[in-house]
Amino acid sequence: MLKPRARALGIPFGTYKPGRWNALTDVPGVTVGHTTIVRGEGALKVGKGPVRTGVTAILPNGAKIYDERVIGGGFVLNGAGEVSGLMQVFEWGLIETPILLTNTYAVGQVADATVAYLSERHPEIGRTDDVVLPIVGECDDSFLNDIVGRHVKPEHVVAAIETAATGPVAEGSVGAGTGMMTFEYAGGIGTASRRVTIEGELLDTGTAAATNRFTVGVLVLSNFGRVIDLRIAGFPLGAVLAPKYAGTLKRPVNVGSIITVVATDAPLLSHQLSRLSKRAALGIGRMGSYGSHYSGEIVVAFSTANRVPRKTKRMTTRIEILLDERLDPLYEAVIEATEEAIVNALFAARDMKGVDDHFVPAAPVDDIVSELKTRGFVK
Amino acid sequence: MLKPRARALGIPFGTYKPGRWNALTDVPGVTVGHTTIVRGEGALKVGKGPVRTGVTAILPNGAKIYDERVIGGGFVLNGAGEVSGLMQVFEWGLIETPILLTNTYAVGQVADATVAYLSERHPEIGRTDDVVLPIVGECDDSFLNDIVGRHVKPEHVVAAIETAATGPVAEGSVGAGTGMMTFEYAGGIGTASRRVTIEGELLDTGTAAATNRFTVGVLVLSNFGRVIDLRIAGFPLGAVLAPKYAGTLKRPVNVGSIITVVATDAPLLSHQLSRLSKRAALGIGRMGSYGSHYSGEIVVAFSTANRVPRKTKRMTTRIEILLDERLDPLYEAVIEATEEAIVNALFAARDMKGVDDHFVPAAPVDDIVSELKTRGFVK
Amino acid sequence: MLKPRARALGIPFGTYKPGRWNALTDVPGVTVGHTTIVRGEGALKVGKGPVRTGVTAILPNGAKIYDERVIGGGFVLNGAGEVSGLMQVFEWGLIETPILLTNTYAVGQVADATVAYLSERHPEIGRTDDVVLPIVGECDDSFLNDIVGRHVKPEHVVAAIETAATGPVAEGSVGAGTGMMTFEYAGGIGTASRRVTIEGELLDTGTAAATNRFTVGVLVLSNFGRVIDLRIAGFPLGAVLAPKYAGTLKRPVNVGSIITVVATDAPLLSHQLSRLSKRAALGIGRMGSYGSHYSGEIVVAFSTANRVPRKTKRMTTRIEILLDERLDPLYEAVIEATEEAIVNALFAARDMKGVDDHFVPAAPVDDIVSELKTRGFVK
Amino acid sequence: MLKPRARALGIPFGTYKPGRWNALTDVPGVTVGHTTIVRGEGALKVGKGPVRTGVTAILPNGAKIYDERVIGGGFVLNGAGEVSGLMQVFEWGLIETPILLTNTYAVGQVADATVAYLSERHPEIGRTDDVVLPIVGECDDSFLNDIVGRHVKPEHVVAAIETAATGPVAEGSVGAGTGMMTFEYAGGIGTASRRVTIEGELLDTGTAAATNRFTVGVLVLSNFGRVIDLRIAGFPLGAVLAPKYAGTLKRPVNVGSIITVVATDAPLLSHQLSRLSKRAALGIGRMGSYGSHYSGEIVVAFSTANRVPRKTKRMTTRIEILLDERLDPLYEAVIEATEEAIVNALFAARDMKGVDDHFVPAAPVDDIVSELKTRGFVK
Repeated sequence: MLKPRARALGIPFGTYKPGRWNALTDVPGVTVGHTTIVRGEGALKVGKGPVRTGVTAILPNGAKIYDERVIGGGFVLNGAGEVSGLMQVFEWGLIETPILLTNTYAVGQVADATVAYLSERHPEIGRTDDVVLPIVGECDDSFLNDIVGRHVKPEHVVAAIETAATGPVAEGSVGAGTGMMTFEYAGGIGTASRRVTIEGELLDTGTAAATNRFTVGVLVLSNFGRVIDLRIAGFPLGAVLAPKYAGTLKRPVNVGSIITVVATDAPLLSHQLSRLSKRAALGIGRMGSYGSHYSGEIVVAFSTANRVPRKTKRMTTRIEILLDERLDPLYEAVIEATEEAIVNALFAARDMKGVDDHFVPAAPVDDIVSELKTRGFVK
Repeated sequence: MLKPRARALGIPFGTYKPGRWNALTDVPGVTVGHTTIVRGEGALKVGKGPVRTGVTAILPNGAKIYDERVIGGGFVLNGAGEVSGLMQVFEWGLIETPILLTNTYAVGQVADATVAYLSERHPEIGRTDDVVLPIVGECDDSFLNDIVGRHVKPEHVVAAIETAATGPVAEGSVGAGTGMMTFEYAGGIGTASRRVTIEGELLDTGTAAATNRFTVGVLVLSNFGRVIDLRIAGFPLGAVLAPKYAGTLKRPVNVGSIITVVATDAPLLSHQLSRLSKRAALGIGRMGSYGSHYSGEIVVAFSTANRVPRKTKRMTTRIEILLDERLDPLYEAVIEATEEAIVNALFAARDMKGVDDHFVPAAPVDDIVSELKTRGFVK
Repeated sequence: MLKPRARALGIPFGTYKPGRWNALTDVPGVTVGHTTIVRGEGALKVGKGPVRTGVTAILPNGAKIYDERVIGGGFVLNGAGEVSGLMQVFEWGLIETPILLTNTYAVGQVADATVAYLSERHPEIGRTDDVVLPIVGECDDSFLNDIVGRHVKPEHVVAAIETAATGPVAEGSVGAGTGMMTFEYAGGIGTASRRVTIEGELLDTGTAAATNRFTVGVLVLSNFGRVIDLRIAGFPLGAVLAPKYAGTLKRPVNVGSIITVVATDAPLLSHQLSRLSKRAALGIGRMGSYGSHYSGEIVVAFSTANRVPRKTKRMTTRIEILLDERLDPLYEAVIEATEEAIVNALFAARDMKGVDDHFVPAAPVDDIVSELKTRGFVK
Repeated sequence: MLKPRARALGIPFGTYKPGRWNALTDVPGVTVGHTTIVRGEGALKVGKGPVRTGVTAILPNGAKIYDERVIGGGFVLNGAGEVSGLMQVFEWGLIETPILLTNTYAVGQVADATVAYLSERHPEIGRTDDVVLPIVGECDDSFLNDIVGRHVKPEHVVAAIETAATGPVAEGSVGAGTGMMTFEYAGGIGTASRRVTIEGELLDTGTAAATNRFTVGVLVLSNFGRVIDLRIAGFPLGAVLAPKYAGTLKRPVNVGSIITVVATDAPLLSHQLSRLSKRAALGIGRMGSYGSHYSGEIVVAFSTANRVPRKTKRMTTRIEILLDERLDPLYEAVIEATEEAIVNALFAARDMKGVDDHFVPAAPVDDIVSELKTRGFVK
């Protein structure tokens, strides 16, 4: 049975309303799939396990992403990590593959499997001077997972892509987040969304932006933070929780990383998506991140509103874009959604035991809610 | 009489201790000077006033900065503003002039006056192929100040530079902050500092880093935010204050800007200072900024630990630098100090009336403290 | 009488044809104005002269630029210099003021004069929370000019803006280029243009891009290079010229800087203009620049095709843009035009004597052409 | 038998002298290894071949690179490609793995194999919260190679790393360059070096920089350019060669990419290495690149002078670094070496036939030399 999400427990996350599923998938056309790999117990035997890892696939435009690309951007708050393919996103402002999330040592295999997968479906690849560079982000799950064993196989990648769906998104210790830790508690995948109304007169009809209501969704692969750093709804809960937590882990763990994917149906250009990504980083900061030296804090963003065809006889494209000065509500919304996505990752997970019996507890949700209630943050 | 600072009122700002003056000037060798220009009342007559503006000068190395440069860096959270000279800081990683803060339309005059000032003191300038590009940051004080009248004159710049001193730093509606607004309350200049102990064995003696205790100081020219956005100690106070505030201003005001100057005696390289600057931006975010489209949020940072001589016969320089992986406490400290500096700007100011009788109230400090006490944030 | 331009002398500059005037002004709507300030002779008396300097104004959209902004971008090859206002160009991707070029120590005064000029014409500035940050680029002309005397006055700036015109552009020791040196020869301003045909089907009619023929223009404020570095049409002429040149200057001179302005009527976005700017840098490299430490090599680019209104009730804008994959001819053309603009600066100037009787010769055009003829570069 | 290198044929490449092998390996401690994979002929059968690809490994510090890291930087001229791991190089300024070059679709497998290789040799990986992100650069060899078949296997990667050696470096159609094309001729790997004397007094003895003589080496994986673009020693040879070449290829080929690796024993910091990398891009521009939209032009640079230990109890490190203003000779040298490395790639290769009998001729070296002689470029 699913645990209740933070919002259902009364935790406040700002003023904008979430979308139907309060998830990245509230952005129409965006689908998410997870492959969770949990196998074995006990002492680490490299290549055998225990395995606590997985793959999460985000499809900005389903199976059509190769031919009908979306506009993309991003921001690197702290580049102590990897999102392969991001260099080309920054150069071209386009996303043309699924976005895959996984563990640090699976980046190569996941990139390879994605290349193979796309090539099978697009036989012109390799025959027409056309190639793709997959987007693969990572965090390090080695406290729980036999990372060196490299257990993510092509079928796991294919499964994550092919099961990607709209609707609610599984959170916590699932997909790429299976072996991840958020503020030293279990859980890696979280998501949230916001509905935003943008002011201003509409252009004539029939266009991508024939509305002034847009959705922004956030999905995090969260693997960062120490208990002491945790803030929820602004309140520095970490100071309250840390004394009880002390000694829980078998050995100290690095502060980790967080990969954030932002999606929106607002018609944004690449530089606007990069600006939006910077605001996602502010949301991470509000949760307690100080961008630790070892923490890869990287944001990728895309807009589904304008599709850029891979092949066209056209010289130009005509697109409708949101005026820069209209972006503020989206900036606020992405901060809220980022905070909520991280808390969702934290609240959804259950206790997790992994390599060498390393034990990572689920976050003490009841305690957290009770502490926030006492202080008037939760009614 | 000075108003009590936020810390004295019990507002919590994290775990690191401030330096002696809880100011940028706690970094040894760093001095700060203000020129405050307040003149006239009533209706705006461009060129006549009313004038509510000024200049703030930060000297990283006193009168010697031209000859004995310091290492610098920075970060642009939202580049809707100007810090002249920053391009060269990013290229060379050096700061070789005072850092001046003023209003948007005084940047040209302040840059010109600084050039004149430096040239008088360094007669080789202009005779030996050597020039300097002054660093001048700005915010827009036109709600209170006759900005188009351009009332900042060379003598104001010289006074700010020449009166720069160590010790306590005046805050609130003073210097460049005279006509500024923070969360729609009066006040622009705030400062704070932190003492940080860095782990690790020291090298042998006699070097810049013959200690593991360092200071990081922050000074803000704060002119950003709406009441509704205000967070203090993480608590979203804005929602509480906004209803009472509604209708206070004669007309709506843009969300503004914030220029942040970070100083430290920790021996950092340029890229490390730029990383530190990114964390200052996280502090701005924690205060409630979402990096509004119109808000120039720009950080300049320098380290006083290593001096880079302007002229040398040497081929190389030998410097001692903090290892990247030791930086985390400085990252945390700069976030804390940035938050506190902004609150200090807010708490220090008094009511201010300016052009066209535009009235900007001082922040309701008693209310704020009381609200925070009720919620257990202040004991 | 004007000296013949390099192209008329048979120097080859690639394969694309220039526009009517082979100048930045071939881009429809773009105007250029110069104020040249030459006064005094003999020994340098700071504040008296001799004066060999000036201002060059580039208006991307005439007097309407404040209200009807153009899309802009840029690239910093070596940031040892200043183009004030560029930070906001990078953030917003917009240019909303004239672009001014001048000497290093006039940046402040020129920025101030531009602010004053725009405020007079737009009285809402300073009354409605709206300000502008002028774009002012510089090179150091102190070998010939009393730079510390700061002789550029507001009337010079206004004159450059108000005399800006379409048609042929004066080159060499004129405007901001008056006291500048190119490869140690006299001359600073040069310009060139290219007509480019882009492949691909047109969209329907009546739009900015209802043609596939575009113009790209380049104007340089060139103040870089040693004789030895000079390459023309790829040929390393410097090695031939340097022995004859040796001893010409009274004292060694730094390698200097070059500010490059690129204009086009091709409908480009900001990131495309930044990519175009990078290619202008490749053109500078082909002329012999190695991006010397002290050489500020900075490119600003804009497209006149899409105007972005300052005030609009609209939420979105609909624009037609060139597809990224169609840009290659523009990349080639901007390299060619940059090379030709620099050679034009070199060939147009005459001998110049300045402060302390520093003498800078005109480039030996006949020798250069003759050397290139001998080697088959000129027919 | 090896073909003579361009320098031996009299082609001029500037004024600095090359090192002993005129190769990247002239930088002491830097080793290079190739694995060349050539298998099969005739029609493309994905997964079967023909195979024309390989791996090139560059070891900045031999087997010790994981524990004794070097300082690194880079520059992206056109980011239409991938160098995985570069984000962390930019963030930390460190290189801690071998640098691998290969084809576009082998990036995943090569990254994976490198991770496995390093993990075997450093069993603490995955057990102590420590991971590495390998640096893998790519170009697209699909005109000649069954790229979709993904024929690069772990043993190829290991072989390239383990056979890495100092001394002469094989060039042309070898290693990662096996199936690559340079200006539409066969050949992908080229290398060159320069010896540079830096002015200035030495510090006291016993340090990394107890000399003022340094080496800068360049190795390219070159896969860019059309015949028409080719310039050698500045001369636009392409226009001469293109008519003869027309029709040679079975189908048009994209303009391709070039990955450039720069090594030096000069003691440089990360930002200095990034500046050096920009100058390598100028060298690529001088060869005829205009940075085509599809061409990934990416530079990675490192300095062997200062080692940064992975584990240390120290708080700081003391390093000796070249003063920024001393860098100019290195800037010039890296441009020269980049040009020569590309010509070496071009001159070393022989005719290559690959998938679907696609035929790529060797460059017509005799013709080229003869054309240059006629014009006085070669004596």
